[in-house]
Amino acid sequence: MDNPDQYSEPPKNDDKFHDECGIFGIYNSTDSAAHTALGLHALQHRGQEAVGIVSAEDNTFHTHKALGLVGDNFNSQDVISTLPGSKAIGHVRYSTSGDTMLRNVQPLFAEFKFGGLAIAHNGNLTNAQILRRSLIDQGSIFQSTSDTETIVHLIATSRKVSVVDRMIEALHQVVGAYSLVALTNDYLIGVRDPNGVRPLVLGRLDDAWILTSETCALDIINAEYVRDIEPGEVVVIDDSGVKSIKPFQQALPRFCIFEYVYFARPDSTIANQSIYDVRKEIGAELARENPVEADVVVPVPDSGVPSAIGYAQATGIPFDLGIIRNHYVGRTFIEPSDRIRHLGVRLKHNANPAVIKGKRVILVDDSIVRGTTSTKIVTMVRNAGASEVHMRIACPPTMHACFYGIDTPKEDELMAHSHDIEAMRKIIGVDSLEFISIDGLYKAVGEAQGRNSENRRYCDACFTGEYDIELSDLNAGQVAQLSLLIGQD
Amino acid sequence: MDNPDQYSEPPKNDDKFHDECGIFGIYNSTDSAAHTALGLHALQHRGQEAVGIVSAEDNTFHTHKALGLVGDNFNSQDVISTLPGSKAIGHVRYSTSGDTMLRNVQPLFAEFKFGGLAIAHNGNLTNAQILRRSLIDQGSIFQSTSDTETIVHLIATSRKVSVVDRMIEALHQVVGAYSLVALTNDYLIGVRDPNGVRPLVLGRLDDAWILTSETCALDIINAEYVRDIEPGEVVVIDDSGVKSIKPFQQALPRFCIFEYVYFARPDSTIANQSIYDVRKEIGAELARENPVEADVVVPVPDSGVPSAIGYAQATGIPFDLGIIRNHYVGRTFIEPSDRIRHLGVRLKHNANPAVIKGKRVILVDDSIVRGTTSTKIVTMVRNAGASEVHMRIACPPTMHACFYGIDTPKEDELMAHSHDIEAMRKIIGVDSLEFISIDGLYKAVGEAQGRNSENRRYCDACFTGEYDIELSDLNAGQVAQLSLLIGQD
Amino acid sequence: MDNPDQYSEPPKNDDKFHDECGIFGIYNSTDSAAHTALGLHALQHRGQEAVGIVSAEDNTFHTHKALGLVGDNFNSQDVISTLPGSKAIGHVRYSTSGDTMLRNVQPLFAEFKFGGLAIAHNGNLTNAQILRRSLIDQGSIFQSTSDTETIVHLIATSRKVSVVDRMIEALHQVVGAYSLVALTNDYLIGVRDPNGVRPLVLGRLDDAWILTSETCALDIINAEYVRDIEPGEVVVIDDSGVKSIKPFQQALPRFCIFEYVYFARPDSTIANQSIYDVRKEIGAELARENPVEADVVVPVPDSGVPSAIGYAQATGIPFDLGIIRNHYVGRTFIEPSDRIRHLGVRLKHNANPAVIKGKRVILVDDSIVRGTTSTKIVTMVRNAGASEVHMRIACPPTMHACFYGIDTPKEDELMAHSHDIEAMRKIIGVDSLEFISIDGLYKAVGEAQGRNSENRRYCDACFTGEYDIELSDLNAGQVAQLSLLIGQD
Amino acid sequence: MDNPDQYSEPPKNDDKFHDECGIFGIYNSTDSAAHTALGLHALQHRGQEAVGIVSAEDNTFHTHKALGLVGDNFNSQDVISTLPGSKAIGHVRYSTSGDTMLRNVQPLFAEFKFGGLAIAHNGNLTNAQILRRSLIDQGSIFQSTSDTETIVHLIATSRKVSVVDRMIEALHQVVGAYSLVALTNDYLIGVRDPNGVRPLVLGRLDDAWILTSETCALDIINAEYVRDIEPGEVVVIDDSGVKSIKPFQQALPRFCIFEYVYFARPDSTIANQSIYDVRKEIGAELARENPVEADVVVPVPDSGVPSAIGYAQATGIPFDLGIIRNHYVGRTFIEPSDRIRHLGVRLKHNANPAVIKGKRVILVDDSIVRGTTSTKIVTMVRNAGASEVHMRIACPPTMHACFYGIDTPKEDELMAHSHDIEAMRKIIGVDSLEFISIDGLYKAVGEAQGRNSENRRYCDACFTGEYDIELSDLNAGQVAQLSLLIGQD
Repeated sequence: MDNPDQYSEPPKNDDKFHDECGIFGIYNSTDSAAHTALGLHALQHRGQEAVGIVSAEDNTFHTHKALGLVGDNFNSQDVISTLPGSKAIGHVRYSTSGDTMLRNVQPLFAEFKFGGLAIAHNGNLTNAQILRRSLIDQGSIFQSTSDTETIVHLIATSRKVSVVDRMIEALHQVVGAYSLVALTNDYLIGVRDPNGVRPLVLGRLDDAWILTSETCALDIINAEYVRDIEPGEVVVIDDSGVKSIKPFQQALPRFCIFEYVYFARPDSTIANQSIYDVRKEIGAELARENPVEADVVVPVPDSGVPSAIGYAQATGIPFDLGIIRNHYVGRTFIEPSDRIRHLGVRLKHNANPAVIKGKRVILVDDSIVRGTTSTKIVTMVRNAGASEVHMRIACPPTMHACFYGIDTPKEDELMAHSHDIEAMRKIIGVDSLEFISIDGLYKAVGEAQGRNSENRRYCDACFTGEYDIELSDLNAGQVAQLSLLIGQD
Repeated sequence: MDNPDQYSEPPKNDDKFHDECGIFGIYNSTDSAAHTALGLHALQHRGQEAVGIVSAEDNTFHTHKALGLVGDNFNSQDVISTLPGSKAIGHVRYSTSGDTMLRNVQPLFAEFKFGGLAIAHNGNLTNAQILRRSLIDQGSIFQSTSDTETIVHLIATSRKVSVVDRMIEALHQVVGAYSLVALTNDYLIGVRDPNGVRPLVLGRLDDAWILTSETCALDIINAEYVRDIEPGEVVVIDDSGVKSIKPFQQALPRFCIFEYVYFARPDSTIANQSIYDVRKEIGAELARENPVEADVVVPVPDSGVPSAIGYAQATGIPFDLGIIRNHYVGRTFIEPSDRIRHLGVRLKHNANPAVIKGKRVILVDDSIVRGTTSTKIVTMVRNAGASEVHMRIACPPTMHACFYGIDTPKEDELMAHSHDIEAMRKIIGVDSLEFISIDGLYKAVGEAQGRNSENRRYCDACFTGEYDIELSDLNAGQVAQLSLLIGQD
Repeated sequence: MDNPDQYSEPPKNDDKFHDECGIFGIYNSTDSAAHTALGLHALQHRGQEAVGIVSAEDNTFHTHKALGLVGDNFNSQDVISTLPGSKAIGHVRYSTSGDTMLRNVQPLFAEFKFGGLAIAHNGNLTNAQILRRSLIDQGSIFQSTSDTETIVHLIATSRKVSVVDRMIEALHQVVGAYSLVALTNDYLIGVRDPNGVRPLVLGRLDDAWILTSETCALDIINAEYVRDIEPGEVVVIDDSGVKSIKPFQQALPRFCIFEYVYFARPDSTIANQSIYDVRKEIGAELARENPVEADVVVPVPDSGVPSAIGYAQATGIPFDLGIIRNHYVGRTFIEPSDRIRHLGVRLKHNANPAVIKGKRVILVDDSIVRGTTSTKIVTMVRNAGASEVHMRIACPPTMHACFYGIDTPKEDELMAHSHDIEAMRKIIGVDSLEFISIDGLYKAVGEAQGRNSENRRYCDACFTGEYDIELSDLNAGQVAQLSLLIGQD
Repeated sequence: MDNPDQYSEPPKNDDKFHDECGIFGIYNSTDSAAHTALGLHALQHRGQEAVGIVSAEDNTFHTHKALGLVGDNFNSQDVISTLPGSKAIGHVRYSTSGDTMLRNVQPLFAEFKFGGLAIAHNGNLTNAQILRRSLIDQGSIFQSTSDTETIVHLIATSRKVSVVDRMIEALHQVVGAYSLVALTNDYLIGVRDPNGVRPLVLGRLDDAWILTSETCALDIINAEYVRDIEPGEVVVIDDSGVKSIKPFQQALPRFCIFEYVYFARPDSTIANQSIYDVRKEIGAELARENPVEADVVVPVPDSGVPSAIGYAQATGIPFDLGIIRNHYVGRTFIEPSDRIRHLGVRLKHNANPAVIKGKRVILVDDSIVRGTTSTKIVTMVRNAGASEVHMRIACPPTMHACFYGIDTPKEDELMAHSHDIEAMRKIIGVDSLEFISIDGLYKAVGEAQGRNSENRRYCDACFTGEYDIELSDLNAGQVAQLSLLIGQD
């Protein structure tokens, strides 16, 4: 949802893919801002760089945005009380841009002919540059480098009357992946793109309706899960309840399979499947596909834990914490300085010799991106005295970049793009290295026959390179050639 | 240059009128950002609440904006080095709005079909709300509550091709007072409204051209004063030099006479008249109009000093510092808390008994707004033992609000609006109270015959109520009815 | 190591015991400050409220202290470079005092007749008030409320010549629990009190010697573990190597058994026993003592995980993550506001229905302090659909306060002090509640026969009330009656 | 009152002498902390780097200290309310040390056998290093590098019983210049050294007693001036009133004559002489000693103003503001960065051509220290078109360093130390340069016969080199050889 330079900027030097956003909206709550803050806190794994909330009341909108974590910025009644009103939306984000500017922090707000509207976006548009250029040529003024602002201007320049009609007209023009929540004086609106790439669920808490990225954001406030919003569905919530509209032509379902592998929280449920169960099943499938004799199954914490438990339970090999994580450092990708980043793995992880010394170790991790972290971890495990180290990865080799809302390195930085598995094994320094097969992954998410190329419910472009949603900007060579405004303000 | 609520917001509780902005632009300097910072520092008296600079280089624009003083925000090479390029513009501002938001801080920047443009504005538009409503209805999205943004959108939606033509087309639609500097990749542009309400001068430093509000901003960097920009003149500066355009119909000259009384710095020169000399002449004229027997002439520091010197030299009564100012507190209007504001005068001023005790004192001040400060000062001087206190004021009674870029209280808060001079004298507690006459003031600024109602060069609406520039928003009852976004972000 | 008010101040409202400090010292390292910062980072679980480092070079000492985490305060080369020299000591602390003052942050430094000395302390003196009163009466001036400063003044007023002799003379006068590291221009000194209550280990990295609280602080910088410092041992490190002195009368070994239960990091080794292995063995012993039929073993994360794994492996009941922890919130006790603290558990934990729904759940936690957290967790697990909930606790009931360096609530706030197990079970709302027996705990730490009251190596006063080290201040009713200086400076 | 390195540290690169401290104490006020903050604000010219207040109530002392200005740190009721109690003392300071550390900020506080005591000091001890070394050898622990702490330790180690007796015993051992205020639970104590080098006055506000450096600190809270504390006098204030003690042998009066020239505020009165009147008289004396034909008398603002008025009134030459000062920059010596310091004069001053152009100008300044500022000012005035520039200085040439509480450059940096007046004239670039004679200065302060070497009331060592108070540390070569602790904490 960000940055015209998405195709040229080097992403941060870490070793995970990561989702770019989490969204939350609530209608008719007596404590809308506090609920939104708590929901965003539960979605913090989807974005740690910035957070914003907009509330609405009597045609006046209130906002608070900040760089950093929800808990560091929305932790006092003083802040919450600046956000009155019975409805609110919020957003957490991870930015791909080197420059994190407050003016890019969502929700975006604008005043239209019909009144104010705030919008929060999870995903990425693939024709944002083309649209932006055209809008500027017609006199629109952009304040951010966010692709989301494109949608805002399309709504503003629509000739339709109602806000919902304007929004639908705007979305007919965009291509890409998006789950949106929008707030007006009268409505909370939710939209999922026709391919349904990013998640969006509907929940209920007493008389309040909630739209959010994951069910864990419902759990934190004891709200009830109602249903997933469907691909291509627009839901309009007002005092009369939830109205569903399907204004788009039906499209192929392409939910991001990597949400199951890594992005979503293990206690969330997507499309009626528990993320935790899917990950354990991936571990079990890994064990079936690639068994090895060993003494202990060790997860790379924390993301490798469910798959490692699944692997251990499927094989009977004991599960143990052979690597201890120091949680006083955040996830690698929020470490700011080169020096700390360089020390990253040692700051975060320590081998536990009691588990590892003299043992044949199966290390289970969720994915290998550049391979740098894996290499350091294996060195640490070997130094702690492992007699053998076998690595098992809970997804197929990640060979391709994502243009649908996930921040990935450029392809030539992906270890699997330029190395076969044997070459990777040697670099990482393990006795064996195996990835789950693409069919195995599909089985773990419930497709008993594995991947059916013709008829599948998931986007797996990062593994297969099959980009089913058009990459318009990329194909047009439409890299940003704008007069950028650079600076923190 | 600010705030849709300008007609309804209570201005801050101090006792001066104050100018709302100072502007500075430089073209072709090897040290453009540092020069701009120094120029803005020299203009700090025109606005202390926020400061911003935009520089341009190779079609990329760089910005730094902050709340607070120039010296507190642009005092390190670290900051200056984030603003590369040989051209820059900057802005200091005093806001009338209770909410000082970073998104209102100028210069404003936008990307247009033709590239980027930054703009900084001193003045106030009187039809901004009417234009804003019309622009929003056509799909423009406003990010600030500033009237300046209206101009930006008019430029964006202009169908003209060149930036200069677009700007001129835009300015044909606005009514009010404005001196502007604008920066594009190729041009530094300066504009003064057809009535020439606010000042704007052209200067030169080696190969660089400068546009700024006052000559003191030239002096600080040893730049040479070239000439005043004329009312209704547009100057376009590029590598080929300075081009002058006069696109507007000729209008009555209405330079703000209060710039001479209080706003401008005493070492500046406007329209070839030294501000210091004018103020001394006001003092001399005051003495001629309203002589009184006394022992000492005491200025209310610092703004009353030049007039007091003029008064003393004209009469031969000794000039002495009977009131000592503690400069560790800023001007009253930047004091933040009620408690400190309440203590304001005592924090800032102390009577000097050595000068005052047993003396007949003539107090000279620049103006009386609400009268609160005057009352406190007189009490302090009486407590220090003055035998008589005579107050002389360097402008006529300020009876009317300003809508042309000066922040004034509402009329019913102006002491002179609801009291005659004798009533004021009693409240303030002086033995005599006299203001310079309107004719005397015109004489001091060089009109030998005094004010000629038919043919005069100045706006004196705050004294006379003659608003010669149309107050369109006010007359249309066009108070802001917008869906505002409230919050610090 | 803190606070004269230790007996009267209410500890923070959380539900864990916690250690008050971690210490680290290094001699002869080319990167002493960076190594110390990394070591302290590895010890962050021993104290999150403040951190300090002192380095020494050419008889000049350098310091940096701050409130907050190591990673937030020592993360830049800018800071590290202010701490030159080949030797350094550092300290992380958790304070029991409401007022966290920078002047209480360790290491403490003083200049003596013999030169400068810095000292860092883990533990608590039980006669600090008596000594402090006596020292003040003789003219010593205290700057902090820390008991550690007592040691500093005893060193200063000693008539011995050498720093080591002064230190030994000083320590002969104190009673209580202490592991110390001290730094002079020539020496790094380590001391463990005669009962050996707190841990202290010796490590080596190339030519550098290290003294620190736990082995995990050696691992983070790839240093080698050499040996534990013995109870009552003083080690003096200089260019000639490590000299060991045993100046104190031999005393009963009373290492804190709670270090094994909760305080130490699972990847540390104390007295040649892996903390992780001990905790797993506690889980296994728990299973043997208190078996129950169930479907899943669920740890209360993170501290309950090793015991839960031990329990699961001993019983064959599957181990699964039935509670997901949100690591974007810190440990409960560093949450600042009442509001957030009230929401504590929901902010940190979420039940994972996939694991819990319809299952008979065994919850394994390390301890129960006030019982408030346990009650909330059980409610959450029941709401997620557990059919039965059985709680197993990895230590005996904690019935007594600690005066030896652990922050504990007052006894009447300890749930086990005033309730029997059946009453606790009802309040917490579980189907069964069992604690490991004191004998079972001793077995898990390697005493095959269980606790031998006459001949044991551990302090277990929090379980048994047997305070073997004299509580002089408490017995003397010596609560602080000082003229305190209150304020942040 | 500061810094063992006082004889070796290069003072800051500015061009004034400056006083190092202002002090204030109040007894029996219902608003003691607010009054102290206001008093310190009035004394801000005596020290801008740090400020502290200690209040006392029921044997508990409260403190707030901060780097920066009073108005920036004590401007909210939130802060004031942390300082309860009916008595308080406070301190503003200018430090000579490069490292401004919070632990050096006064008032200092310590807890003694008799209870707590806080102390604030204006002046400088000349045997502090000798005493410090001796105290450390006996076991005292210093926390700051301040000479004031020496007094604290002497009080602590005194064998006397009462706090007043201890204080007198302590002060019998120190040599140097000091005005002190001290606060205990029962007393407010004021002391002026036997030579009376620094000022100290007694005031009254309703039922409250006040001790402070200057009368302007009484004026700000409308308190009444009672009398000056005499040299060698100790005043002890408690509920029974003010008790005066004269415990020291009578000594020569040596009040600092430079307080009249520059340090004190013009609206203060010292020893019944108005500072403003003395400065005007200096100007008049200057005019009598060194007349010159000219068109205008121009002060170097702000410190040169009273002397310039005196000069103008004595000669009849018009006084005018030929140099405008920008008060948005503080006094030169609080400018932090090299870059800004380099630009110092231009940031602060601008020539006013209306006054200067084509004129014969008499510039009046208070003193010449290094001469750098004077040179820049004269260049600026010449560039503005002055036909002649004559400089007149309101004190004799400053040829010697001060060791009695004034921060001065080392002697070889003083322009007058190594140049005669003609050489100085050439460097500064003026047509004539004259200083008031030492006899003229004495006449201006009321000694009709000029300076009587045998019988005078003033210290004038900076002009004459006659150091009448022993420089013990300097003579003993007692430069600090301590194990310093360096760092901000």
